[in-house]
Amino acid sequence: MSELKEIKNVSEDIFKGKILHLQLDMVELPNGHLAHREVIRHIGAVCVIPVTDDGKVIMERQYRYPIDEVIWEIPAGKLDRPDEDPLEAAKRELREETGYSADDWQELGTFYPAAAYCDEKIHMYLARGLRSGESHPDDDEFLEVSLVPLKELAEKVMAGEIPDAKTQVAVLKAAKLLM
Amino acid sequence: MSELKEIKNVSEDIFKGKILHLQLDMVELPNGHLAHREVIRHIGAVCVIPVTDDGKVIMERQYRYPIDEVIWEIPAGKLDRPDEDPLEAAKRELREETGYSADDWQELGTFYPAAAYCDEKIHMYLARGLRSGESHPDDDEFLEVSLVPLKELAEKVMAGEIPDAKTQVAVLKAAKLLM
Repeated sequence: MSELKEIKNVSEDIFKGKILHLQLDMVELPNGHLAHREVIRHIGAVCVIPVTDDGKVIMERQYRYPIDEVIWEIPAGKLDRPDEDPLEAAKRELREETGYSADDWQELGTFYPAAAYCDEKIHMYLARGLRSGESHPDDDEFLEVSLVPLKELAEKVMAGEIPDAKTQVAVLKAAKLLM
Repeated sequence: MSELKEIKNVSEDIFKGKILHLQLDMVELPNGHLAHREVIRHIGAVCVIPVTDDGKVIMERQYRYPIDEVIWEIPAGKLDRPDEDPLEAAKRELREETGYSADDWQELGTFYPAAAYCDEKIHMYLARGLRSGESHPDDDEFLEVSLVPLKELAEKVMAGEIPDAKTQVAVLKAAKLLM
């Protein structure tokens, strides 16, 4: 890795928000030149693809302000603390957003949504053995929950009709495991 | 969408960088309450999964400063202008980063890597009919190019060994189409 690595020279805090922390760093490149790096620090997140016994996925329709669109997504949310157990966070987000809890949890790996400029890491889970209950979304969270067959979702992902990255990955992985 | 939509009230520019533009907006929620939204504006990007006639993917190993890791990724890059044809950008990035050009281009759809806080949209392509040439990476871009069998990559994605989101999506889509 040494011949590719960049070394931090100076780091400046530009903005510390509730969700995003923006830094402007100066780094030394492998050839000794200096370059700026605009970096978003994010606490990390989880997402869950909850699949019912009859092969349906608990999906959410949610408005996303940056893109001004209502899109289909699997349940997801930020960690409460940097050291929170991601599995506990996944159970909480599933319960709060959809009301469901699950008996059977399987890790589907992690991913960086935008490693070029953001350190957010997302932990992904497959949840089965679902039991319904009452949802408790956050105060500023408005969403609609629907059940959609996994097979139909996988076709929509392949047809380019599901624009959310984490949902594309989770649906394709779950379809490969379960179908 | 009206019962989920948030209405912009005030927008403040926090930072305008070379890659990221950070805004702090105040929005009106569907229930009439006000809330802050931290929003990253990004010009948009492309990524390409280039597959050779014998089923190998042209992959890159690249250091990503925000996560302090060297990771495997498919070729990708930002648009030069907001209105640039994404296919032209994809052809340019493939040629500059790997030296390859391709006779056969197929759209694999688009995705938002982080729609909760960033408007970046990535256009994804499958490139075949590859011809090798000389690479011309950007001045501040250091990467190593390798060929990896698509089958092996799909297994690595399923095993959680490829941490880059766009690479996970592209590999799973290409594997479903070609294998």
